[in-house]
Amino acid sequence: MHHLDTASTIPASTVASLMGQIAGIGRDRLRGGYTRPVYSTAELDLRGWFTEQAAARQLSVEQDGNGALWAWWDLPSGIRADAVATGSHLDSVPGGGAFDGPLGVASALAAVDILRSRNLKPTRPLVLAVFPEEEGSRFGVACLGSRLLTGAIDRDKALNLRDPDGNTFAEIAAHHGLDVRRIGADPALLGQLGAFVELHVEQGLGLGQLQHPVAVGGSILGHGRWKLSMSGQGNHAGTTLMRDRRDPMVAAGRTIAAVQQIARAQDNARATVGRLHPVPGGTNVIASRVDFWLDVRHPDDAVTAAVVQDIHRAAQQIAAEEDCGFEFSQESLSPTVGFDADLSRKLGASLGNAPVLDTGAGHDAGVLAGHVPSAMLFVRNPSGISHSPEEYVEDADAELGALALADALQGLLS
Amino acid sequence: MHHLDTASTIPASTVASLMGQIAGIGRDRLRGGYTRPVYSTAELDLRGWFTEQAAARQLSVEQDGNGALWAWWDLPSGIRADAVATGSHLDSVPGGGAFDGPLGVASALAAVDILRSRNLKPTRPLVLAVFPEEEGSRFGVACLGSRLLTGAIDRDKALNLRDPDGNTFAEIAAHHGLDVRRIGADPALLGQLGAFVELHVEQGLGLGQLQHPVAVGGSILGHGRWKLSMSGQGNHAGTTLMRDRRDPMVAAGRTIAAVQQIARAQDNARATVGRLHPVPGGTNVIASRVDFWLDVRHPDDAVTAAVVQDIHRAAQQIAAEEDCGFEFSQESLSPTVGFDADLSRKLGASLGNAPVLDTGAGHDAGVLAGHVPSAMLFVRNPSGISHSPEEYVEDADAELGALALADALQGLLS
Repeated sequence: MHHLDTASTIPASTVASLMGQIAGIGRDRLRGGYTRPVYSTAELDLRGWFTEQAAARQLSVEQDGNGALWAWWDLPSGIRADAVATGSHLDSVPGGGAFDGPLGVASALAAVDILRSRNLKPTRPLVLAVFPEEEGSRFGVACLGSRLLTGAIDRDKALNLRDPDGNTFAEIAAHHGLDVRRIGADPALLGQLGAFVELHVEQGLGLGQLQHPVAVGGSILGHGRWKLSMSGQGNHAGTTLMRDRRDPMVAAGRTIAAVQQIARAQDNARATVGRLHPVPGGTNVIASRVDFWLDVRHPDDAVTAAVVQDIHRAAQQIAAEEDCGFEFSQESLSPTVGFDADLSRKLGASLGNAPVLDTGAGHDAGVLAGHVPSAMLFVRNPSGISHSPEEYVEDADAELGALALADALQGLLS
Repeated sequence: MHHLDTASTIPASTVASLMGQIAGIGRDRLRGGYTRPVYSTAELDLRGWFTEQAAARQLSVEQDGNGALWAWWDLPSGIRADAVATGSHLDSVPGGGAFDGPLGVASALAAVDILRSRNLKPTRPLVLAVFPEEEGSRFGVACLGSRLLTGAIDRDKALNLRDPDGNTFAEIAAHHGLDVRRIGADPALLGQLGAFVELHVEQGLGLGQLQHPVAVGGSILGHGRWKLSMSGQGNHAGTTLMRDRRDPMVAAGRTIAAVQQIARAQDNARATVGRLHPVPGGTNVIASRVDFWLDVRHPDDAVTAAVVQDIHRAAQQIAAEEDCGFEFSQESLSPTVGFDADLSRKLGASLGNAPVLDTGAGHDAGVLAGHVPSAMLFVRNPSGISHSPEEYVEDADAELGALALADALQGLLS
């Protein structure tokens, strides 16, 4: 076996320099920011970058059956048990920011460099993970990679998910070299993990207000996605009188207004329609169908269910009034997740007096939490804005985040 | 010069057989029907088909500076003056029907065959025209080709129009071999025309109710298009409380509901939002901007203006309530157009007791009407539906339409 002089050949990178390497990949000229849907050229380029960076650090990179990447810092024994995992995702929402996902991956690589510089000899394996389709921006189900790994989504349901071009997940996965028979729950891989720590940019103003650079995650609000379809009669906008119309765009517009009213009536509820697609979508054409998507979150799962039920009823009523057909289907639902108390306490201890912040955003760590002790670190975002080009992390905070992650990992690996 | 035996070598086609030749071009797998935007592969294939068919009929095909095709049946003298023009367009709305546009082009070719079979020796030139971007489905301005020809749209405004991918009309035109310097009004070409007759599928149930196969056009309702943009604050759907939101999707949804209310309050008014585009358009993202398009029509131009003003005011009020920015811009406006009385009377006379029908749809004939005596023929559509895969013409009615067109042209050419 060929032995390298580790200290002289392994790169030691800052988070900022790693983020700089990928700053040009997947820029969105129209929306601003980045559009990096899973298995797009941009996301594949990012996977290539991660694989190169991990290999340069002599980590052993493998792709699991669901398309997640795992870069192992193995023990000399090669035994993979009770491993400490860290990482995040590289896909983005359309026109998203630079940090949501990639910050956790870059920080994991930088943390490896910090641990190497400290000459740490881990007593447990460390593994860097990159999960596909965390945003659900292509196939409609957030955290698809971790949901498949843990069996939180039925494999047949996942295989039949369709992207906006009508391709199934099975088709796209096969096209990118996955063995479709291997897609689904992987208890053997999951069983090798003893802890998971995900570092992520904060998606609110909590740390900005507290004037802290890094927080420990408290819980993830329960949330879900539903697809609504209003169907009417496609026709010519000039020749069809108002009284003869069955216009699904009007039904959708009224429903969106109702969503706001219903969510406002419930303290702490958040309900959003951010995606809407009229068919056929011409200026001089009454739409025949409008598909739109609903995102609902609340700390109390019962309230989430009640809000969704109210919206469902209101939309049904509006559809009847507009003489439109209406379909309502759940695409995903995740209960409120508390992270592992012991692991979170250890993270907090290694960080000194770090604050604890809940989050309204879903994360792969929330999906893994039911199977592996999991915890999160959040890094300050002075804009408080996420899923937008305005999402931001100061370079100094990014380095403090990687240091915090390295300290936390060192505590777990020693 | 090489002389062909006309009778034996020139094809004699039915409208149905011509339509059958293009039935496979530009089918839309997702929306159903056809998607043939100007300068798409589908529309270019249709141009190629028309050019071949015209050439097979020994017509001399030329492309004008604005990308319209003109297929001349010249006089032996070669003098092009007081020509009779007929034709329509080959582009479609997204997911449109088979007949809107192509029926007029196929009927023009079939009418040539009928006139040849009658051994007509024209006393005026006949020219078949195919206008680009009649639907405005790519660059947002309906009848762009005829508007440019007649100077109804400023050439600089036209050159800077953008398609949904952000390409300007100038870029796309140049890419497809147009000399951008030649784009714009062409009074020389226009001056060669003495009449224009456009045959078109009816876009309502008028002929179905009257039990007639063909009508003469009365007038085209005034109509216009406006672009509305609501801008708010893009942010994460999970982390942003309802009270902290500036959500342009809610503002757009409420405006769409207001459009319906305002149009319903005016007898005979039609107001439609059929196209809407949220930016960035992710399920778990509060939109930062929503662009949507308004189409308004009424027989009385003053009422059209009043309806648009009411909608503008309502949208401004809604934008203020939702703390959103609001922009409102006119993309096109066409007054109500009456066709040439003398020409329409001649068409009616050649058809026997054909009914006269107004239409709420815009057409290139309406744009040309201000410059060249123009008239229209409508062919029965039993569905009454247009801009939809359900648009329909019976084969027998299509042949009766071509025969009516041939009779009308013969009257003008003799």
